[in-house]
Amino acid sequence: MRNKIRLGILGGGGDSLIGVVHRIASNMFDRFQLVGGCFNPNPKENNAFAKHIGVPLNRTYDSFDILIEEELKLPVEQRMEVISVLTPNFLHFPMAKKLLENDFNVICEKPLTTTYIEALELEALQKEKQTVFAVTYTYTGYPMVRQMKDMIRRGVLGPVQKVDLQYYQGWINPIIHDLEERAKVWRLDPKKGGASCCIGDIGTHAFDMLEYVTGMEVKQLLADLNTLYGNNPLDVDGTVLVRMSEYCKGVIRASQIATAEENNFSVQIYGSKGSLKWEQENPNRLIYLTEDKPMQVLKPGHGYLSEFAKESSKIPPGHPEGFFDSMGNIYNGVAKALRNEKHDEGAYPTIHAGVRGMLFIEKVLESHSKDNTWVNL
Amino acid sequence: MRNKIRLGILGGGGDSLIGVVHRIASNMFDRFQLVGGCFNPNPKENNAFAKHIGVPLNRTYDSFDILIEEELKLPVEQRMEVISVLTPNFLHFPMAKKLLENDFNVICEKPLTTTYIEALELEALQKEKQTVFAVTYTYTGYPMVRQMKDMIRRGVLGPVQKVDLQYYQGWINPIIHDLEERAKVWRLDPKKGGASCCIGDIGTHAFDMLEYVTGMEVKQLLADLNTLYGNNPLDVDGTVLVRMSEYCKGVIRASQIATAEENNFSVQIYGSKGSLKWEQENPNRLIYLTEDKPMQVLKPGHGYLSEFAKESSKIPPGHPEGFFDSMGNIYNGVAKALRNEKHDEGAYPTIHAGVRGMLFIEKVLESHSKDNTWVNL
Amino acid sequence: MRNKIRLGILGGGGDSLIGVVHRIASNMFDRFQLVGGCFNPNPKENNAFAKHIGVPLNRTYDSFDILIEEELKLPVEQRMEVISVLTPNFLHFPMAKKLLENDFNVICEKPLTTTYIEALELEALQKEKQTVFAVTYTYTGYPMVRQMKDMIRRGVLGPVQKVDLQYYQGWINPIIHDLEERAKVWRLDPKKGGASCCIGDIGTHAFDMLEYVTGMEVKQLLADLNTLYGNNPLDVDGTVLVRMSEYCKGVIRASQIATAEENNFSVQIYGSKGSLKWEQENPNRLIYLTEDKPMQVLKPGHGYLSEFAKESSKIPPGHPEGFFDSMGNIYNGVAKALRNEKHDEGAYPTIHAGVRGMLFIEKVLESHSKDNTWVNL
Amino acid sequence: MRNKIRLGILGGGGDSLIGVVHRIASNMFDRFQLVGGCFNPNPKENNAFAKHIGVPLNRTYDSFDILIEEELKLPVEQRMEVISVLTPNFLHFPMAKKLLENDFNVICEKPLTTTYIEALELEALQKEKQTVFAVTYTYTGYPMVRQMKDMIRRGVLGPVQKVDLQYYQGWINPIIHDLEERAKVWRLDPKKGGASCCIGDIGTHAFDMLEYVTGMEVKQLLADLNTLYGNNPLDVDGTVLVRMSEYCKGVIRASQIATAEENNFSVQIYGSKGSLKWEQENPNRLIYLTEDKPMQVLKPGHGYLSEFAKESSKIPPGHPEGFFDSMGNIYNGVAKALRNEKHDEGAYPTIHAGVRGMLFIEKVLESHSKDNTWVNL
Repeated sequence: MRNKIRLGILGGGGDSLIGVVHRIASNMFDRFQLVGGCFNPNPKENNAFAKHIGVPLNRTYDSFDILIEEELKLPVEQRMEVISVLTPNFLHFPMAKKLLENDFNVICEKPLTTTYIEALELEALQKEKQTVFAVTYTYTGYPMVRQMKDMIRRGVLGPVQKVDLQYYQGWINPIIHDLEERAKVWRLDPKKGGASCCIGDIGTHAFDMLEYVTGMEVKQLLADLNTLYGNNPLDVDGTVLVRMSEYCKGVIRASQIATAEENNFSVQIYGSKGSLKWEQENPNRLIYLTEDKPMQVLKPGHGYLSEFAKESSKIPPGHPEGFFDSMGNIYNGVAKALRNEKHDEGAYPTIHAGVRGMLFIEKVLESHSKDNTWVNL
Repeated sequence: MRNKIRLGILGGGGDSLIGVVHRIASNMFDRFQLVGGCFNPNPKENNAFAKHIGVPLNRTYDSFDILIEEELKLPVEQRMEVISVLTPNFLHFPMAKKLLENDFNVICEKPLTTTYIEALELEALQKEKQTVFAVTYTYTGYPMVRQMKDMIRRGVLGPVQKVDLQYYQGWINPIIHDLEERAKVWRLDPKKGGASCCIGDIGTHAFDMLEYVTGMEVKQLLADLNTLYGNNPLDVDGTVLVRMSEYCKGVIRASQIATAEENNFSVQIYGSKGSLKWEQENPNRLIYLTEDKPMQVLKPGHGYLSEFAKESSKIPPGHPEGFFDSMGNIYNGVAKALRNEKHDEGAYPTIHAGVRGMLFIEKVLESHSKDNTWVNL
Repeated sequence: MRNKIRLGILGGGGDSLIGVVHRIASNMFDRFQLVGGCFNPNPKENNAFAKHIGVPLNRTYDSFDILIEEELKLPVEQRMEVISVLTPNFLHFPMAKKLLENDFNVICEKPLTTTYIEALELEALQKEKQTVFAVTYTYTGYPMVRQMKDMIRRGVLGPVQKVDLQYYQGWINPIIHDLEERAKVWRLDPKKGGASCCIGDIGTHAFDMLEYVTGMEVKQLLADLNTLYGNNPLDVDGTVLVRMSEYCKGVIRASQIATAEENNFSVQIYGSKGSLKWEQENPNRLIYLTEDKPMQVLKPGHGYLSEFAKESSKIPPGHPEGFFDSMGNIYNGVAKALRNEKHDEGAYPTIHAGVRGMLFIEKVLESHSKDNTWVNL
Repeated sequence: MRNKIRLGILGGGGDSLIGVVHRIASNMFDRFQLVGGCFNPNPKENNAFAKHIGVPLNRTYDSFDILIEEELKLPVEQRMEVISVLTPNFLHFPMAKKLLENDFNVICEKPLTTTYIEALELEALQKEKQTVFAVTYTYTGYPMVRQMKDMIRRGVLGPVQKVDLQYYQGWINPIIHDLEERAKVWRLDPKKGGASCCIGDIGTHAFDMLEYVTGMEVKQLLADLNTLYGNNPLDVDGTVLVRMSEYCKGVIRASQIATAEENNFSVQIYGSKGSLKWEQENPNRLIYLTEDKPMQVLKPGHGYLSEFAKESSKIPPGHPEGFFDSMGNIYNGVAKALRNEKHDEGAYPTIHAGVRGMLFIEKVLESHSKDNTWVNL
């Protein structure tokens, strides 16, 4: 008889959206039991929140360090098996490191760390420990994204010859034109948001998606970023030329000043035998183009899909699933890995995807600062 | 401090899809705790399932009657507060009745009962008991459906002058042409599926949606059903002319032989000042038409929406929510009602909506059998 | 060497939209030469218009009768070969009759006549004369409509089991609520617009389309019309249940009070092996649904289309064609018939389609007046 | 009384698609009369074609030089007023030059010439002669493109801060992988197709569209082209980073190896106050995004459009117009200019747009050959 996986959560308290996403996702397949955590650095609020969401107070810890200490005292069969790290970005590295050192499995929000060097260190540690370590690039959980991945690896498109990814949002537009407004937003403060805003936040999603669906690596890139104002230190828009090989080229386009765009993330992959197109805002449609045949529109839940895509939807065709369900699929992938069940290699984004994401950010900034020249990854 | 609502579930065990939907939905707002139930009439399977989903065995009961008996022994503050009825249709009435008699709040799958007379009896009992009683017409939980309802009641469309609802599926097509296949499907057996297949199963959703979004009642109808074969006793398709008033007319169209349609449920409401159009398979778009202005497309999460629609999405614009989230909103409505929190009158479909649905089915059958003449509701 | 077909036009002068449509359409395939006509009952305006569009004045006639008289004096090889009748509806019958009697080929705007009996008389005359006689149900000229027709007749859908056509416009909404505005609109005056407004104007298009694409006849109908106001004598909205056979049923829905709809004409045909869906406002996409396969979207210009559809587009895929091009295809069909070239039986809508349209209108009115009962066609 | 403009055509004979487009377009507004031309270098075929399309043989000339000679002998009031140049690209320059020298107005297909220096020479001559000279960037004739232009110049979007244009086709994919197939295609032969394939053919359309709708100039660009094979000398794909000003950046993406794409040309313009998005394959919808308001979809024929957009459609809303109609609007613009009627500055693309297009091609090739560095325009 299957028993539930004991889950702990770091961060995600109060009104945290990402907390809601992880809690709902972890519940979707009846596989995880949230047994404790440290949701908030303020102990009073931490406890109140734990009560609010129905987590036992005896495993609601005042700090991350106490959590580690106390959980290690518990017998292995009661101890948290996997811990989700939903804290601010700069805490990902120290927390994940300590969790790894103490043999916990980890689900870590993206970005994995704040620097590439840290990311490499974590990856080395994870290799040594052989724990499950997922980085939640949420969009890879959509059934139709998984169908893309599967079709490409089965060679349905033939060799990929062109790639084009767009991630356009508009939320920084109402902020960027006003110095006062700008000062209020941590994302636009290099001390808090890190060396990149747009590329770090959403460009990495597009980069990860590209490598995820194609199974190929970006080998070279050339980036042109835009800060929109001379006195704004961080990129709010950028276009990145990429090369997967000498003759397989493409582009990643990201913007947070694409006024009034919501979360317009789209993927276009062109191979010599066919093409695939997908849009996050309409995620239950995958467009498949081939020469001399009508355009095909694939949808979740159908028998014609790959096993991987089929197991990524919970209800019959025509019942839309969305963003939460996508994250639910990633949690389900982690569950399978933790229980040594058969699972697709793309069942959850690995720490390596997190490492590649950090490399991407650094290389984009390097290319931009070197007068938009090519850099190798 | 808010404590969680103690939820019990009847039915929904094993591979039951509706069980998955209710469990996920009940978890979405951190408001319910599934404390027990009777998921399966086979005690062994019942217990296995309870373990599987992490429900304590001491409150996993061998039968509905035992559940009632044992729960009543518990102090009120431990007893299940609300019980979801997910059993086969013919059990809805006896179970809901006994639950009401014992002062439980109820969440009941549709159809409420198998006859209108039973439905009326339940409604009378519920009025007497004043418990919360929801009927899960799931589609009313979508944010954009709620936006429709709110816009119409605020008079944004002016007087409604035409209505048109479509619910087209194709799943019976591969079954209906083959007598052997047909015999395997309980839905097509009047002894198991009741007096109506298509109208009872999906036509009622359209009818409920019509009365839900317009706040108006269907006063008269004229129906033409189709069984496709003379030796098939049940409707698999039907068109129903409706009149909301002398000059406000419209149509409900339902089919299960609309080959290869998935779950194509759409709503079009036309008023003298504007129109609204919505499609379930693309639920995060509401089309708003007015004369002399560009077509507007409303989407969830925006500040321009009504409060009711706003509180029905959990994440910012551009992150699609779907069918599970819709049911989650209905559970959230029930939670608010149970905790006496302020809530919209449409926060969950009431028992009255369930009663109307039963009346609709009976009246459609009556009109059809009377050579497609008008009948009053 | 091919010589051009000599075309005359009746009506369509001044700002007439339909005149523009026919002139452009007749030019599209380099097959017609507009040699004369009578565009306007006022001789001065008639001549001015002829000059404006570059028609020789010596064949610009002051009246229809003079046109006939003078053209008959010309040798056959100079005489107009085909004459387009674009005059007000009540003139269609007398003009078409006289044209037939004098052996002219005719292109007539719809409705063919103002009564069914007149239509029958014309059809009898045309059978006797064996001239080419087209009725311009313009929408049948779209390449994707022709593809529908061809797929259905080749049995691609299997037996048709359900049909659903919608023709929704909103243009009467801003008129109908105001008695003064209403009085200005000839369409709403039974003396000018005839016995039906909505069904006569657009319902007939849907009816013709249904019989055109399926190759089947409507055998019975039941109609419910709506005048919206007791003091408005004419239908501005109507729903018509139709039966193509005992178990092939469907519905035609038409409205001119579907507020702010433009010209929302759509067709859904469901067969046992597959389904086709088409929308006039997005005419270059034909949706083809089959069980267990991805949705297919057919587009003009591709090699996978039927010959009939292929010859109905003039440019490669991806270059949208529209309403004028649709009418151009009908003119091209007439050209082929006049020159005895091989052409599809659907190359232009025949007089029989015009006769059926008149029958439809009368039968709809009959059913409505008989308390919405079934009538046979 | 308006008389028709006397039009001559060079090239476009036989099965030429572009010939069909120009003939239909010139007829659409009853403003041009095709009086003669030289359609084919073979005199026999030339005459046969003239007969076929109904052009008088006495003005069907055996060569371009004879045409000039003979037309100049005619009195001005009979002479061709404007001549459309539809010949192969390398003939555009010598023909246009001689036409200008002899004071003819010109409508020239794109590209204007084969080199930038030639283009400059023509422009200088045109300035001297002050004749009307249009370059047929056909896509600028769509009503919704004109609406974009008008909204941007009226400041509706505020300052433009990001631009993104895509022009993806797939037609070279089935050719490029096979050396034999490749050898048959003149476009891929530098001797015939010129120095660029993809950028020259479709990239220029995107570039022209960008400058047309924004009214801004591209100041700098950085290009990365792709030939897909080392032994293919010409670009079949390319991405061009553009800068309209220091902080207004963007990208032009063009491909002919985007497998199975038809003619997927799209435009996205983002300003500080709003955004506009348009797609050529669905040309009758213009998406207008603003913060805090529902998405708006503008369509042709409505009163809310600018005058320029309104006069660019010929029928009421809901009747789709397409590619031919777009070209018809450009011809109508030329007609207005020739008759000194009031017209929008964007009524037809000028010779300057043609010159800019040639500069773009040369600068893209320069940037690519200089290791993808920035070049100034």
